[in-house]
Amino acid sequence: MVDQRAATDADSGDKVPRTERGRRTQRAILDAAAAEFGERGFHDASISGITRRAGVALGSFYTWFDSKDAVFRALVADMSNRVRDHVAPAIGAAPDQIAAERAGLLGFLEFARAHKEIYRIIDESEFVDPDSFRRHYATTADRIAARLRRAADRGEVIADAGEVHAWAIMGMNVFLGLRYGIWSAEEDPAAIADTIAAMLARGLARHD
Amino acid sequence: MVDQRAATDADSGDKVPRTERGRRTQRAILDAAAAEFGERGFHDASISGITRRAGVALGSFYTWFDSKDAVFRALVADMSNRVRDHVAPAIGAAPDQIAAERAGLLGFLEFARAHKEIYRIIDESEFVDPDSFRRHYATTADRIAARLRRAADRGEVIADAGEVHAWAIMGMNVFLGLRYGIWSAEEDPAAIADTIAAMLARGLARHD
Repeated sequence: MVDQRAATDADSGDKVPRTERGRRTQRAILDAAAAEFGERGFHDASISGITRRAGVALGSFYTWFDSKDAVFRALVADMSNRVRDHVAPAIGAAPDQIAAERAGLLGFLEFARAHKEIYRIIDESEFVDPDSFRRHYATTADRIAARLRRAADRGEVIADAGEVHAWAIMGMNVFLGLRYGIWSAEEDPAAIADTIAAMLARGLARHD
Repeated sequence: MVDQRAATDADSGDKVPRTERGRRTQRAILDAAAAEFGERGFHDASISGITRRAGVALGSFYTWFDSKDAVFRALVADMSNRVRDHVAPAIGAAPDQIAAERAGLLGFLEFARAHKEIYRIIDESEFVDPDSFRRHYATTADRIAARLRRAADRGEVIADAGEVHAWAIMGMNVFLGLRYGIWSAEEDPAAIADTIAAMLARGLARHD
């Protein structure tokens, strides 16, 4: 489903595969693009580098993507969707909203450790494709704000939980992912998630 | 003092001005570099663009900086120091640590609105000069963690306040600055700082 969703993204500008084989090829190209852009950066990356890594012919690449810019744009949307899909089940299964935010952070730390290239790619999109950069963070923040507002309606979080809290949570997660997912991976992700969940539950001030 | 501190940074690789005139020239070059790199990005920026904006001769530039890389590196350290110096008085004057973190965010939002180029420059340093990028965030997080530990010693925040909370606070501030400092400047910074201070004081969970 991830493949299809990325491919059907109205903004990605590429084509929708109609066959399983087409989906597999498009997936292979996006995975190869993640490795190529992640290792070499946008400017040094090449379509031939991507097709070589994917083991597909140049013609296959152009069946699905028009250009290096187009595959980069599709890759940012794909990574954005993959993070969302990776964390969604644990968020959905959590018993309350603090547990859900804990699960979101834990899932993101795991994803960042397994896909370290995500930082370089999303961060480089600020310069290579500013619309993709903005869409990624605006969409992610909207999703967090929406779930906080639903939790407020259920009485699980404060009544005014919304956009500002969503941007704060997204920023925390991105920087904790940089520090404990990319820079080092020695710390226990569950302990980090516990620390942040406690802060979201009770704050940082000492009350006793 | 900011000029001198930036210039004496052991890592910046440039020279320390001994006269007021030298300090003013170096300051003019750094301000011009902020405008040039902020508008054009590192690759399209040029030393002649910087000297033209600064109104100084090329020879003056080379008195203080060896290269485009050197002035970019010095600029990242300078911006890092200027943010610190901008927020430090309000943080120091705050009656308790939650008020201090509120003041830190408020000061940062003001700084980001007044110096929008800071995002492009710090963000681009990840690619142009990764050591500067890492030093900026590691130093900032260390500073926040140190003040949280002092507040924990005073009994104002939870006893285990430290590095994880510091990275969370830094990430919140960076993303709130992006959203409410760079993308739009319509929202009231004091209201945003109040919202986050309440979250740091009592958490996001509803307790009543």
